Amino acid sequence: MKNRELPSLFAGRGRGWVRAATAALAALLLAPAASADTLVDNVKGYTLNERGVLVTFEALLVGTDGRVKQLLRKGDRRPDRPDYRLDGRGRVMIPGLIDGHGHVLGLGFQAMQLDLSDTRSLEEAQVKIAAFAAANPSPRWIVGRGWNQERWNLGRFPTAADIDAVVRDRPVWLERIDGHAGWANSAAMEAAKITAASKAPTGGKIEMAGKAPSGVFIDAAMELVGKAVPPPLPRTRDEALAKSQEIMLSQGLTSVADMGTNVEDWSAMRRAGDANRLRVRILSYAMGLDPLLSIAGAGPTPWLYDGRLRMIGVKLYSDGALGSRGAWLKAPYQDSPKESGLGFNSDAEIRNLMSRAAMDNFQVAVHAIGDKANEQLLGAIEELAETYKGDRRWRIEHAQIIDPTDIARFGRNSIIASMQPVHEASDWRMAEARMGRERLGGAYAWATMLQNKVPLAFGSDFPVESPNPFHGLAVAVTREDAEGQPPGGWMPEQKLTMEQAFAGFTTGAAFAGFAEERLGSLQPGRLADFLLIDRDIFTVPPRDVRDTQVLETWVGGRKAWERSKGAVTR
Amino acid sequence: MKNRELPSLFAGRGRGWVRAATAALAALLLAPAASADTLVDNVKGYTLNERGVLVTFEALLVGTDGRVKQLLRKGDRRPDRPDYRLDGRGRVMIPGLIDGHGHVLGLGFQAMQLDLSDTRSLEEAQVKIAAFAAANPSPRWIVGRGWNQERWNLGRFPTAADIDAVVRDRPVWLERIDGHAGWANSAAMEAAKITAASKAPTGGKIEMAGKAPSGVFIDAAMELVGKAVPPPLPRTRDEALAKSQEIMLSQGLTSVADMGTNVEDWSAMRRAGDANRLRVRILSYAMGLDPLLSIAGAGPTPWLYDGRLRMIGVKLYSDGALGSRGAWLKAPYQDSPKESGLGFNSDAEIRNLMSRAAMDNFQVAVHAIGDKANEQLLGAIEELAETYKGDRRWRIEHAQIIDPTDIARFGRNSIIASMQPVHEASDWRMAEARMGRERLGGAYAWATMLQNKVPLAFGSDFPVESPNPFHGLAVAVTREDAEGQPPGGWMPEQKLTMEQAFAGFTTGAAFAGFAEERLGSLQPGRLADFLLIDRDIFTVPPRDVRDTQVLETWVGGRKAWERSKGAVTR
Repeated sequence: MKNRELPSLFAGRGRGWVRAATAALAALLLAPAASADTLVDNVKGYTLNERGVLVTFEALLVGTDGRVKQLLRKGDRRPDRPDYRLDGRGRVMIPGLIDGHGHVLGLGFQAMQLDLSDTRSLEEAQVKIAAFAAANPSPRWIVGRGWNQERWNLGRFPTAADIDAVVRDRPVWLERIDGHAGWANSAAMEAAKITAASKAPTGGKIEMAGKAPSGVFIDAAMELVGKAVPPPLPRTRDEALAKSQEIMLSQGLTSVADMGTNVEDWSAMRRAGDANRLRVRILSYAMGLDPLLSIAGAGPTPWLYDGRLRMIGVKLYSDGALGSRGAWLKAPYQDSPKESGLGFNSDAEIRNLMSRAAMDNFQVAVHAIGDKANEQLLGAIEELAETYKGDRRWRIEHAQIIDPTDIARFGRNSIIASMQPVHEASDWRMAEARMGRERLGGAYAWATMLQNKVPLAFGSDFPVESPNPFHGLAVAVTREDAEGQPPGGWMPEQKLTMEQAFAGFTTGAAFAGFAEERLGSLQPGRLADFLLIDRDIFTVPPRDVRDTQVLETWVGGRKAWERSKGAVTR
Repeated sequence: MKNRELPSLFAGRGRGWVRAATAALAALLLAPAASADTLVDNVKGYTLNERGVLVTFEALLVGTDGRVKQLLRKGDRRPDRPDYRLDGRGRVMIPGLIDGHGHVLGLGFQAMQLDLSDTRSLEEAQVKIAAFAAANPSPRWIVGRGWNQERWNLGRFPTAADIDAVVRDRPVWLERIDGHAGWANSAAMEAAKITAASKAPTGGKIEMAGKAPSGVFIDAAMELVGKAVPPPLPRTRDEALAKSQEIMLSQGLTSVADMGTNVEDWSAMRRAGDANRLRVRILSYAMGLDPLLSIAGAGPTPWLYDGRLRMIGVKLYSDGALGSRGAWLKAPYQDSPKESGLGFNSDAEIRNLMSRAAMDNFQVAVHAIGDKANEQLLGAIEELAETYKGDRRWRIEHAQIIDPTDIARFGRNSIIASMQPVHEASDWRMAEARMGRERLGGAYAWATMLQNKVPLAFGSDFPVESPNPFHGLAVAVTREDAEGQPPGGWMPEQKLTMEQAFAGFTTGAAFAGFAEERLGSLQPGRLADFLLIDRDIFTVPPRDVRDTQVLETWVGGRKAWERSKGAVTR
């Protein structure tokens, strides 16, 4: 253990204290922190307790097993001789946050790829594409993501010619911000053998410019180009996983539900686990039945690597996304009246897929954005619940646009609504354009969900959105975007209290993954995953929550990241 | 721990001893054996020491870490208070044997499938196929293996009609004993859409009966039917792995090199490891580059699960097998002068495959049966060794028929000859028919290999042959088959001493897998994997070695199997 890795909690004290601390440090050098009881004292701690009530504490005692041993309140007698005593200096402590819906490898790849998510116009994007190509001369393909023609106010999809104007010599393939459309240059279409005669597969669409493909491919049609992209090398996946974990820890995420793990992703996670490089806890939902059965076999895996990895179920898809008009709606799109989205499966098909997973006790999580897709799943679950009894925790991912008459059906079967508050802030204008305000009564309807006793799990859908959970918390309590729009919030009756929002990213997300006995709450016996943050999210003005800075991130009773020093090697 | 799981070493003693033992048993019930030192006393122990010299011992002290702590000889002072003391009653102890080339899942599947390896005629095979079909009405396909038209003295390959005569209503697909040919009935060919117009892929051959496929498919052509066979369910793979381990332990194998692990096999191994159900040690060589890179990524995995699983390298193929005339020869087959076998790759291709693995420090093991295939690999390794320096341990699997002028080339680059003594006993008649005696001067040439200082690793190629390593030891010292043919041995100058043969299945096989620091020898610090067997293989008449019975099999200082009780749950 090197000096720079010592807890920063010791920092900023006087001389005498330094000497005392030095003795403690000497002890630390003799044994790793996790092998002894650690008292973190003098914090302003918050956690939801077993009954879901927000409680406060002033000190946390962590056992040698990396689990919480005791919460202490002001005046409580401290243990006589904890092996280590750290001074929290009055900072705010909360449980490590859980992202209930993210894409772990995707986040790492995004950080390593061309990122267009901050571009405000097509021209800005073109400048950035050109600069990236110049800075990265070796890769055979330039791959990126993050564009959003809505944000650009382009009034149309971009085209291959828009990229050709800046990069012509190499294939370029750029996914839309929601991952539901791809934008290719001419070289990419040539490499993928796309011609005017190419046909979109079911569930997909090729945008046309006259008689030829324009360069944009929607949903299932993305695979026409995507399959020509050279797959990342295993080494690149390992880097992406490391990068992703670093980002998560820095944002205050200690656990994540990986929504769509393929065999290659899983291999990278296992390599990281085998090499003691898993630093966050990953609850994996396989990308369809094939990897699920291939990897996990006859049932969910146990928690592996000291509670850092588990494959518990499957991710399925019922429809596409709203931005690319792939979301499956009960009525046509207002801004494209001939379309009503893409239903990926017949009722029988989706039921059979869900049933195959459920029969081996796998948890089932299904993507559904549009009101029609959600209705299909509600019907499927109502039917399946008659066969598969017990505590199944069927999950609907996104549960974005619900017909108000359908919301009560979530509660009746205790179906988990796995929602991403930031989507509301990103989407509200587009949602109004796509569907009109009057059809959005059940859109991003967090408060109505809770009123209907629907178990709510919150996440970010990173890298579609920033993984920063404080953005999600802020949106959940304000219904305003980063620019404060619309002032007072969009459909403000759906705002949550901070306590409700906090539950979504802690106990709610843990419950959604059958992990409430270990994650999401700082109580004796639960894992000591916690954050020290720079402000009290329960008392600052709601808009300030977004800018919360994580100071330290602890996983299993050991510090995994700190602001001043970055990642802390285990 | 239940009574029936207690060490059988206590069995068969007088009353007073029983009382004393009962006290010891009570202690055992309080703590698992591996958590304390165990002295196994009063054995006739043999092991090769660090210098490869056979040494004897009378007692073995095993540490709490499952490793050997001390070997004690007659008269050596015993430790004052070992936690457990077991009486070996004078039985013979040897290190757990290592199969340097087996197919772990294949062995389990074989045990669960139709097995024709004991049939002596086509008629016997037909009776067995019919009986299996009657006993197993549910599987959609009947799959099996083990037929050998040579052993049947059929003078031809069997045909689809031969199966149709007994099973017509379901597809039947039966692999030849060497895995290099498959035999289908008409329903299987129909399911696989085989017609008179079907073409064999490169490296394969469709046997014809007049203008139509006869039902037998050689090497690469097997895939034409094989791809239509429904893949085993993960659950079935788990059963196969459990079955395979049970068979290995019962035969005295505690470790195995799995020669050709695919992604599904690896998943089953990981599931077993995750659930604490890995009972033997598996050193995995991936079935080609794709699973290698997908699973292991940028280099060999560490030893996982307390030293029970590691992916260290890749298995590649240079040619087919002799029985199906797929072995690639320098001159035409004597019994089919228009054929000289199937070379699977050009010189450049095989070199590139080997190079890709070696560049990430993976070990490379390549199948080569015929003299031309071996020559190709020797040339490739000579060239690659200039780039990939250091301790690479290139392996040639089988190294079966070598041009005598090529043998010295193995020694010069310390290329490991990974050979299976039982193949000699199974093949010698066929080898003479295929090539004529005068071209076999370097065939199954174990003694010549050793004279040329070639590192030798022995195995069985199970399930092509029985996994029983005592069969291999017996053949290695006699060059006679199970029936004692030919008396005095075939090419008897290639016989080995028992010490040399024993090295092949212990230290040699360990060295071939970079595992000599942990496996193959009972020395302080090495893993306490050992057997108690019913005879002294170093003193009984060589032919009696074949019938050696394993009494107990210990892995990592804990009993894993015993004859009277079968598998011992960890």
